[in-house]
Amino acid sequence: MSLPAVHRDPTLPERVTIYEVGARDGLQNESALVPLETKLEFVQRLTAAGLPIVEATSFVHPKWVPQLADAADLVSRLDLRGATPYPVLVPNERGLDRALEAGVTHVAVFASATETFAAKNLNSTYETQFAMFEPVVRRAVDAGVQVRAYLSMCFGDPWEGEVAVDRVVTAGKRLLEMGAYELSLGDTIGVGTAHHVEVLLDAYAEAGVGTDRLAMHFHDTYGQALANAYAALRRGVTTFDASAGGLGGCPYAKSATGNLATEDLVWMLDGLGVAHGVDLPALAETSVWMAQQLGRPSPSAVVRALTTG
Amino acid sequence: MSLPAVHRDPTLPERVTIYEVGARDGLQNESALVPLETKLEFVQRLTAAGLPIVEATSFVHPKWVPQLADAADLVSRLDLRGATPYPVLVPNERGLDRALEAGVTHVAVFASATETFAAKNLNSTYETQFAMFEPVVRRAVDAGVQVRAYLSMCFGDPWEGEVAVDRVVTAGKRLLEMGAYELSLGDTIGVGTAHHVEVLLDAYAEAGVGTDRLAMHFHDTYGQALANAYAALRRGVTTFDASAGGLGGCPYAKSATGNLATEDLVWMLDGLGVAHGVDLPALAETSVWMAQQLGRPSPSAVVRALTTG
Repeated sequence: MSLPAVHRDPTLPERVTIYEVGARDGLQNESALVPLETKLEFVQRLTAAGLPIVEATSFVHPKWVPQLADAADLVSRLDLRGATPYPVLVPNERGLDRALEAGVTHVAVFASATETFAAKNLNSTYETQFAMFEPVVRRAVDAGVQVRAYLSMCFGDPWEGEVAVDRVVTAGKRLLEMGAYELSLGDTIGVGTAHHVEVLLDAYAEAGVGTDRLAMHFHDTYGQALANAYAALRRGVTTFDASAGGLGGCPYAKSATGNLATEDLVWMLDGLGVAHGVDLPALAETSVWMAQQLGRPSPSAVVRALTTG
Repeated sequence: MSLPAVHRDPTLPERVTIYEVGARDGLQNESALVPLETKLEFVQRLTAAGLPIVEATSFVHPKWVPQLADAADLVSRLDLRGATPYPVLVPNERGLDRALEAGVTHVAVFASATETFAAKNLNSTYETQFAMFEPVVRRAVDAGVQVRAYLSMCFGDPWEGEVAVDRVVTAGKRLLEMGAYELSLGDTIGVGTAHHVEVLLDAYAEAGVGTDRLAMHFHDTYGQALANAYAALRRGVTTFDASAGGLGGCPYAKSATGNLATEDLVWMLDGLGVAHGVDLPALAETSVWMAQQLGRPSPSAVVRALTTG
């Protein structure tokens, strides 16, 4: 198997954490129901491939995301006290109740930096979403559960266009101040470019939020995901969301390719000499297997290159 | 149409030249013959979209690349004295003779940084290729024709693995010293990563070859092309090879995706506030049209995102 030559850049972080979102963000928009056993095997294979944290599912109401209606069943089959955390998304207090009943140790909330997406995705407003999430975060923290906050539409919004950096910083700080241990900044529609990433990170730094509390979540809609991850890595970010095989896509842009593919990120990190702990061949095999389950090839360049031709 | 928000990075070059290779590098591996009229329309639409230099074809022997057997006919239909140069590849003196007869103003030679690829692609050795190209470059320059030199396998080679940076610098300098005005450094199999790019550019700088004489030619086989282009841009490179719609692929890795897609590069440059002169919608329309001629969708993320869903 080909591997990149290692040229270690001493100015980059020595190690990063890859936060694997394939089982949740990757599968949530699949229209054909994926069997519970397949999801379980997917999560377990991702764990075995060395992903240090694997978001497993969402306790969203089944009416909204039928694909994840089996969230409680899936979580009941996972080893919630092992070395690998399995966060679950919780949209509201009812979702948190279900997650706590299931015994999870990590949850995530999903907020919007824009008014329009708050309305469309959360049936809320920009302002009222904070009131909605505040008791979720507080109760989770009180229960000893770690809370991650996603902030979506941090670079652009399909209805509002560019999203102002100061708005993104203000919204993100509010989520951290509620008690989230980490804030994942999402380029939900993939429009951002490298210096926009730097400008946003610099604005957070100026507002007192360092890269130790930030993760970056890129989508590859316009092919920018890996270049943007590289820019963020150069600014000191050490947590990156990625999806095995590049699974997933934005429901508001059908043609869009999905999340940054974990394999493509791993290839870059390997070349840069940045440690991550992931077994690339095992991961790529997992993505090929999952692509077979879904009936279409993986969009990840690395997966294609390593497993065909 | 969506466009990226502009965040100008003042440390980057203000303007770059995109050297469009779709009509040559993109088409040369197509097995089904593309009609001459289609190639002509492709080149003319690329020109109309603002690409400042459009490599048109190769005067390789038709036995080796039947797809480009119509090189002389194609060139005879182009405006060779207009504002847009139409370079052609010339593999040897016989190819140069044909190109000069056709009245071209720009030619390109294609050398290898490795022994094995010199044998397989050029039926030569690493050393004898220079003797082969020397009269080609000299005679072209004497005829008032500009010569570009490609150097392939600058990052890795499928048979030899990593390629040493000093070997790449030595080979490239020899090509420039022959009289080439520009050296295009190719990651032919797409294995390179961002700091490897920086290390190579730094080695050239140390050897007295600045970015004013260098171009970068990336393939997206492992998803690294745009991140690598960004790293090169940060080091001051101002000429980038790219292929409309991401056309093309390496014949030695069938599954590989092709060249860096011009549209994905343009999207990044637009976001970074780096001028390039290309009309993105016109270019994306051209790539969609060309994809229809070839009977399969464009691999470019930007083309897909702008033209569907």
